[in-house]
Amino acid sequence: MKIRPVKIHTHRENILFLRKDSDFCRAQSGPALEKIEIVHGDRLLVGTLDQVDEGFLEPGEIGLSEFAFVTLGLPAGTEVEVRHPEPIRSVELIRRKIHGEVLGREDYAYIVRDIVRHRYSRVELTAFVVACAQAAMERDEILYLAQAMVDQGEKLSWGREMVADKHCIGGIPGNRTTMVVVPIVAAYGLSIPKTSSRAITSPAGTADTMEVLCEVDLGLEQMRHIVEKESGCVAWGGAFSLSPADDIIISVERPLNIDASGQMIASILSKKKAAGATHVLVDIPVGPTAKVTSYRQAYHLRKLFEFVGEHMDMALDVIITDGSQPVGRGIGPVLEARDVMQVLHNDPAAPRDFVEKCLDLAGRVIDFHPAVRGGYGRSVAEEILKSGRALDKMERIVEAQGRKAPKALGERVLEAKAAKPGRVASMDNQKIAKCAKLAGAPTDAGAGVDLLKRVGDAVADGEPLFRIHAEEEADLGYAWDYWLRHEEMVGIE
Amino acid sequence: MKIRPVKIHTHRENILFLRKDSDFCRAQSGPALEKIEIVHGDRLLVGTLDQVDEGFLEPGEIGLSEFAFVTLGLPAGTEVEVRHPEPIRSVELIRRKIHGEVLGREDYAYIVRDIVRHRYSRVELTAFVVACAQAAMERDEILYLAQAMVDQGEKLSWGREMVADKHCIGGIPGNRTTMVVVPIVAAYGLSIPKTSSRAITSPAGTADTMEVLCEVDLGLEQMRHIVEKESGCVAWGGAFSLSPADDIIISVERPLNIDASGQMIASILSKKKAAGATHVLVDIPVGPTAKVTSYRQAYHLRKLFEFVGEHMDMALDVIITDGSQPVGRGIGPVLEARDVMQVLHNDPAAPRDFVEKCLDLAGRVIDFHPAVRGGYGRSVAEEILKSGRALDKMERIVEAQGRKAPKALGERVLEAKAAKPGRVASMDNQKIAKCAKLAGAPTDAGAGVDLLKRVGDAVADGEPLFRIHAEEEADLGYAWDYWLRHEEMVGIE
Repeated sequence: MKIRPVKIHTHRENILFLRKDSDFCRAQSGPALEKIEIVHGDRLLVGTLDQVDEGFLEPGEIGLSEFAFVTLGLPAGTEVEVRHPEPIRSVELIRRKIHGEVLGREDYAYIVRDIVRHRYSRVELTAFVVACAQAAMERDEILYLAQAMVDQGEKLSWGREMVADKHCIGGIPGNRTTMVVVPIVAAYGLSIPKTSSRAITSPAGTADTMEVLCEVDLGLEQMRHIVEKESGCVAWGGAFSLSPADDIIISVERPLNIDASGQMIASILSKKKAAGATHVLVDIPVGPTAKVTSYRQAYHLRKLFEFVGEHMDMALDVIITDGSQPVGRGIGPVLEARDVMQVLHNDPAAPRDFVEKCLDLAGRVIDFHPAVRGGYGRSVAEEILKSGRALDKMERIVEAQGRKAPKALGERVLEAKAAKPGRVASMDNQKIAKCAKLAGAPTDAGAGVDLLKRVGDAVADGEPLFRIHAEEEADLGYAWDYWLRHEEMVGIE
Repeated sequence: MKIRPVKIHTHRENILFLRKDSDFCRAQSGPALEKIEIVHGDRLLVGTLDQVDEGFLEPGEIGLSEFAFVTLGLPAGTEVEVRHPEPIRSVELIRRKIHGEVLGREDYAYIVRDIVRHRYSRVELTAFVVACAQAAMERDEILYLAQAMVDQGEKLSWGREMVADKHCIGGIPGNRTTMVVVPIVAAYGLSIPKTSSRAITSPAGTADTMEVLCEVDLGLEQMRHIVEKESGCVAWGGAFSLSPADDIIISVERPLNIDASGQMIASILSKKKAAGATHVLVDIPVGPTAKVTSYRQAYHLRKLFEFVGEHMDMALDVIITDGSQPVGRGIGPVLEARDVMQVLHNDPAAPRDFVEKCLDLAGRVIDFHPAVRGGYGRSVAEEILKSGRALDKMERIVEAQGRKAPKALGERVLEAKAAKPGRVASMDNQKIAKCAKLAGAPTDAGAGVDLLKRVGDAVADGEPLFRIHAEEEADLGYAWDYWLRHEEMVGIE
């Protein structure tokens, strides 16, 4: 049959379309036919079959969703063979996991290989994710999954003995420490070629925030060149195919809003390993509206991180931090970049908690260096920040990545005010993030929330708590409505 | 926006199509946008969003997959509002189930309601199925799920104090006992308005086999009329919307090939309850290639069936039967109908095991009747069969449902022969079923496998083991190839 691209974008799933009246569909008893396979030379693509009525395809055509068409990589009209796929053997492993078995190293290798080859439907992928989430993977299983994820992707190497990295498990708005830690660590002379993500469900990812200042979509050669010269950079990781299985797994975790610890650890450490890191600091914020809500849970996670990291040949340090409220004041790319630059400028207006957290983290990364004995990394970091060397390094990195014209803050502004006098007792990370997103962040870089008060501050009746910035009037309205319906996002006692 | 049917058949999932360049898609940050909602008056439909390139839809149009279009039930071109859906609250319950919580009665009611309203994507539906499969639902949870499934569908009532039913959990080819049990029980005078399914993955369902003899797609009034007159019938259950949640859940269980006990029990008992049964016999075959492979597992299932049945106000009897090989000789609609009629005619050629099993089952159903004390139901059943009253009843039922012209057996035949002399030691239910399916069953009613030997029979070298019947030469070839590659399906020692 001849292939024809059908311009449908299908959440990373290969969908193949056949006419209901085609020989292939007529010969099958309908409901059991779920998947088909197309073959051309040594190329092979398995996909979920959707049957279509006539008029949609010409007789003799097989339609491919955009994702399937790109994956197959053959021109429209190419003649292919259509057949029943061999059963995917690794699906049997998923069944075993569902039935409570512990899987082994080879099992995870098969599963991840089939994920990366896009052989799973979203039903099968979800089954894998949920089976692993629910059964609480054993620590060996997490290790096997992480290693399989590294093996099935690109690997960067930097030709250095020590390559530092840091990662926060996420969930805390405004927590843009990477953009301060990287220049401090790089100024110290330790290599820190950071690859960061864009926001998936948050109001700003590190890549989105760095992009306010400079380009982040760097090629590998450019990145290598910058790291050679400056020891550090902050690039968008999506430009590389590091742990591609992770992106596919996330595509079903996201709509389910689950982020099971085993898969999270495998995801994070596989990306770090693939990015060539040898020494990794992991930040676990704890708080009632953070991802991790108890210290007990955080300690358990730390042990798992350490076990898996060690067996992947990385030196790992886990820091447990305060996740009870957003870090810093700005939430949204331009606002967060402003906070970052205030810290680097030693501006007295810089949010104190943000400064302290950056120094804690940078200190712990510097502590990795064998020259730093007795854990005085933090004082090294502080000296680098205070002396202006961190700012200087940041400017050089921004210049090397390609400085951008300054971006303006969203000019449409409303102030959320306290409904009663008292003291700020709590701030809901998730609701504040949602408010910033409704204002337009990160699509509109200048949109977001600017916190004027923090937990512990006294407020008078009617005193402003935060400012909402938006670029579009409608978005300002959405965010404002959300605030009015969720005033509990800032608890006053 | 104006709705436009897109003639794509999408495995019972609502898929909605929007142009990538539509205002709605452009205003959203892409990857997080998974679901949208369309509203028209009091109608509301939630679906998974697939973005399409221009040319596929006109500006201002929203495309609906065939399933979504039929579900919404509005004419093409109708103006609808497109918006973000409210988060589906019951998805939070699924998350809690994934995290190991036990859910309550109301929780299952919410989940099943959202399943029946087609508010779940296949990702969410799979998450529910796998979470319940893996955590081994508690018996209360199975009850809650079953009750919720009954509540969310049609219910039949027969205005009688006792309505009998029987059900086999499946997996054994040739096991067409219903068509003998119903006439025996009906001849005794007990009401048994049987609704049966067509094959989903097997070579023949009871509805497929009954359809060889007569119509099975009966309306409710016709069914009621037949039961009034004859006490029994064998109708296709798909004509009624009994436990519609079950059909949707099966649509993801099937591709995963999982059939977890909790969901299986809820599925079976919800359909029986909805069909108006008061007394139900459940048949659990046990064997190495049956669904249930150990007696321990069968006893555990029996207890769960009894608990849930009792709390749904049904009298339940569970019979554990021999599932070590196919029942009877024929596998495929025409062949199975032949076996049934041989049994009803007291033909000496009738397969003995099939006769015995039918009498066991019919006897246990008759035992439900308060007039039958001391469990002599089996001898009542035997008397009814031997006397020809069961045959007479079957003829009346067939006449009432609408007799069909006799269907021929597939004329293309090959005989599978023993490769060595010895004794038949085993028969693989699944492989024999697969062979019959490849021969064309149940799509071609005359296709299938006719067993000439059974476990325990002596065979000479080269003696025929079974005959493959097909209507098409190609299908005969597929089945024959499968036999040649899987001769172990009949073990000879």
